[in-house]
Amino acid sequence: MLDRIDINCDMGESFGAYKLGRDQELMNYISSANIACGWHAGDPTVMDQTVRLAKENGVAVGAHPGYPDLMGFGRRRMDLTLSEIENYILYQIGALHAFAKAYGLPLQHVKAHGALGNLAFVNLEVSKAIARAALRFSKELILVVYSGTIMVQAAKETAIPFVEEVYADRVYNPDGTLQSRKVVGSVIDDPDKAARQALTIIREGYVTAHDGSKVKVKPETLCVHGDTPGAVAILQRIRGELKKASISVKPMGQ
Amino acid sequence: MLDRIDINCDMGESFGAYKLGRDQELMNYISSANIACGWHAGDPTVMDQTVRLAKENGVAVGAHPGYPDLMGFGRRRMDLTLSEIENYILYQIGALHAFAKAYGLPLQHVKAHGALGNLAFVNLEVSKAIARAALRFSKELILVVYSGTIMVQAAKETAIPFVEEVYADRVYNPDGTLQSRKVVGSVIDDPDKAARQALTIIREGYVTAHDGSKVKVKPETLCVHGDTPGAVAILQRIRGELKKASISVKPMGQ
Amino acid sequence: MLDRIDINCDMGESFGAYKLGRDQELMNYISSANIACGWHAGDPTVMDQTVRLAKENGVAVGAHPGYPDLMGFGRRRMDLTLSEIENYILYQIGALHAFAKAYGLPLQHVKAHGALGNLAFVNLEVSKAIARAALRFSKELILVVYSGTIMVQAAKETAIPFVEEVYADRVYNPDGTLQSRKVVGSVIDDPDKAARQALTIIREGYVTAHDGSKVKVKPETLCVHGDTPGAVAILQRIRGELKKASISVKPMGQ
Amino acid sequence: MLDRIDINCDMGESFGAYKLGRDQELMNYISSANIACGWHAGDPTVMDQTVRLAKENGVAVGAHPGYPDLMGFGRRRMDLTLSEIENYILYQIGALHAFAKAYGLPLQHVKAHGALGNLAFVNLEVSKAIARAALRFSKELILVVYSGTIMVQAAKETAIPFVEEVYADRVYNPDGTLQSRKVVGSVIDDPDKAARQALTIIREGYVTAHDGSKVKVKPETLCVHGDTPGAVAILQRIRGELKKASISVKPMGQ
Repeated sequence: MLDRIDINCDMGESFGAYKLGRDQELMNYISSANIACGWHAGDPTVMDQTVRLAKENGVAVGAHPGYPDLMGFGRRRMDLTLSEIENYILYQIGALHAFAKAYGLPLQHVKAHGALGNLAFVNLEVSKAIARAALRFSKELILVVYSGTIMVQAAKETAIPFVEEVYADRVYNPDGTLQSRKVVGSVIDDPDKAARQALTIIREGYVTAHDGSKVKVKPETLCVHGDTPGAVAILQRIRGELKKASISVKPMGQ
Repeated sequence: MLDRIDINCDMGESFGAYKLGRDQELMNYISSANIACGWHAGDPTVMDQTVRLAKENGVAVGAHPGYPDLMGFGRRRMDLTLSEIENYILYQIGALHAFAKAYGLPLQHVKAHGALGNLAFVNLEVSKAIARAALRFSKELILVVYSGTIMVQAAKETAIPFVEEVYADRVYNPDGTLQSRKVVGSVIDDPDKAARQALTIIREGYVTAHDGSKVKVKPETLCVHGDTPGAVAILQRIRGELKKASISVKPMGQ
Repeated sequence: MLDRIDINCDMGESFGAYKLGRDQELMNYISSANIACGWHAGDPTVMDQTVRLAKENGVAVGAHPGYPDLMGFGRRRMDLTLSEIENYILYQIGALHAFAKAYGLPLQHVKAHGALGNLAFVNLEVSKAIARAALRFSKELILVVYSGTIMVQAAKETAIPFVEEVYADRVYNPDGTLQSRKVVGSVIDDPDKAARQALTIIREGYVTAHDGSKVKVKPETLCVHGDTPGAVAILQRIRGELKKASISVKPMGQ
Repeated sequence: MLDRIDINCDMGESFGAYKLGRDQELMNYISSANIACGWHAGDPTVMDQTVRLAKENGVAVGAHPGYPDLMGFGRRRMDLTLSEIENYILYQIGALHAFAKAYGLPLQHVKAHGALGNLAFVNLEVSKAIARAALRFSKELILVVYSGTIMVQAAKETAIPFVEEVYADRVYNPDGTLQSRKVVGSVIDDPDKAARQALTIIREGYVTAHDGSKVKVKPETLCVHGDTPGAVAILQRIRGELKKASISVKPMGQ
């Protein structure tokens, strides 16, 4: 049984006049922020504000790079070459790093966003291209990999530091993948249920799939989606339960 | 009389399928490359290639940030707030730094591009916002300032390391500003004339304005525009003359 | 005293995952929609939905072109040439017209957005470039001009059909210009006050400036900002008062 | 045997400071121009100039819409929904139509660009979404379909006017598809060979595939790529041979 866990959440997804997410509120409950880098979401002003907000809340910062597709919020797959993926991610890591540096924070981690992240789950070469981008920047950046996927193999093969991620607010398939968002109910918005799933994952090392089967997971960081209805309530419940169980919440990099 | 000078040139201005500039050729003659950062020109693939090319040629690399206006190539002024300017430049510095870091090169300098640079020549607050962006990233980044302008004051007031820049291939006004590109003949494309201007600047410390008057300049880096017709010939002549005069060409940061 | 008026409102300002404005609600109260064209706001999916929504509500549609600056929401002036302004607006008119045509609606009007509109208020040549863009598309497009500004002259000189616009929810200066948004209280969010201003304008032909002086205006269309707090309440009050006064609300082009 | 043919070529692919293609030269030899619409290439200034150039040369104009991916020149597939494809193409058709209208030209045709076009060759639903976009704009727009592909079926099912297209400068596979550009020699840059292929297609109704087999084709418009080395020479030879054979070159819509 674990005595500590990281909680990560996507942050900084506003753009210009467009506001998205409740970053200020959510920062109270998380330990690591995945910050958009201006391609699928975010802009330099938003990045500056988000990094400052993270610092004020003692939250560690990471880059959340995505496809160059603001109109699609990075949720539409693009047929990029591996070299393009590598360079696009390196660019975004650098951009976010500048703001972290300006605030005296280290850049802790990298987590691929949206359709690029989903592709990485199932495509070893894409996963390795993402890892290479991070490694080219620094040998110390932590790659967030979705637990149980090919990304773990990619991380091992490229010898990049990594942590495995599990989801508090998503229904799992028996094979450990996430049930598609298209299936009604695949996003868990009941705080009790999400908190229960989180606790079972952390304390028991498994998650119960939609057919009742138990899927082994190795949680190092727990993802809660900021845009899930009731995200704040979910996070409050999770934090409360973790406290009762004497499990501390700390950034993955500490 | 100086025994050394830096020669800088804008580089990496291609974008996707669009090729611009003769970077490969010009890299042979310069000591510092101002590399576009993906906003007014450049993309991550181009940045990667340009930084690699610079490294292969022993050329130091700097960021050449500009307005978020690819359609206008950063040559159209935008009414940004000082905070926006600061954050936009910090973003671009970070993006380019990632590629420099990937190739094991330090990021040597920052030079504002196009209409943003022109605005900085005459606007102290804008100049200082640019300096602040660089300082937020690192106390060691060198700011390239146009010799004799308000940028020098901005650099001093913000205590940023800086070098003063002069132009080999542009006609000067008696007050030390550049004659507008709209005036026919304001861009010097005769290699002899440009080389002569460069040598007079370096050896004598002045440039002859279009009315024959002498303008004092304090050259630390010499800019040659890669898109000037005959840029290569100009650079070859300048390098030849500098060699004869035993003036070495070295990156501003060395 | 008028027996009819048009009410226009900016619409279709969402972009991809970013939602902005309460278009569905506001469509009930207006007669003309100024629809963003994908440059400073809006995307083709949003344009399609907004035009359909307008049609369902019997609201006439117009193009609301702006600067190519999504990050700044078109609110930052850009130094474009007159030819660029003309072509950029022609492009946006065409893009929106395609959706109007697809739904069997005529394109009724053109109104410049944000910083481009503000520039047109004070710059005759810019106003005329906007008018020329509309005229190149069709001799029947109505140009919305801000009442009492140089835009009226531009419209007359270019012989474009036009209507004069007044604001229900903004405080006026004695010279007929709008008090800057930077002045606290310059946006009227009290429904009673806004409705009173609208009625005085329509029935009396003047607006009371912030110093108490009366500014003559010639209202043909009344603008209410959809993003003003209380926009719906303001529109409800205005519609109620207009009904009492037997003033009908009809699209400017009818 | 045909006594007439259309020759189409991609045009207007420059963007801002980036120049691409030899439009001025090529306009002399073609009858229909596929003009980029500002998404994967082109901008309003370029569109304006290209439509004017087409008019001066008696060349008919069509829209050449592509993916929203300037960085990839529209050559990278994006996973768009059918509704997105439809709206994105409708938008681009409208934008180009505005310039055609400004010059008093009808919009003759629509041809999908790059990766979107390639996808349409093999995906019936995508082909139909493209056809629907054109039909929503006008029942008279001609859809250019690649001869022998599923696009023909899509055009028939949606009852859109269409013409079948063949390539003078590409090597064919025995099944009528084009040999991948990745295969060396798949682009024919020998003017004699390209002209011979064009003439055989037009006069004999077949093209010889790379294995020597004959593929039946039904040519109504012949595509020559402006970016093929020797495009002008190829077009000159084709025009010369067509003249000898008394085959006239006319826009598809006449």
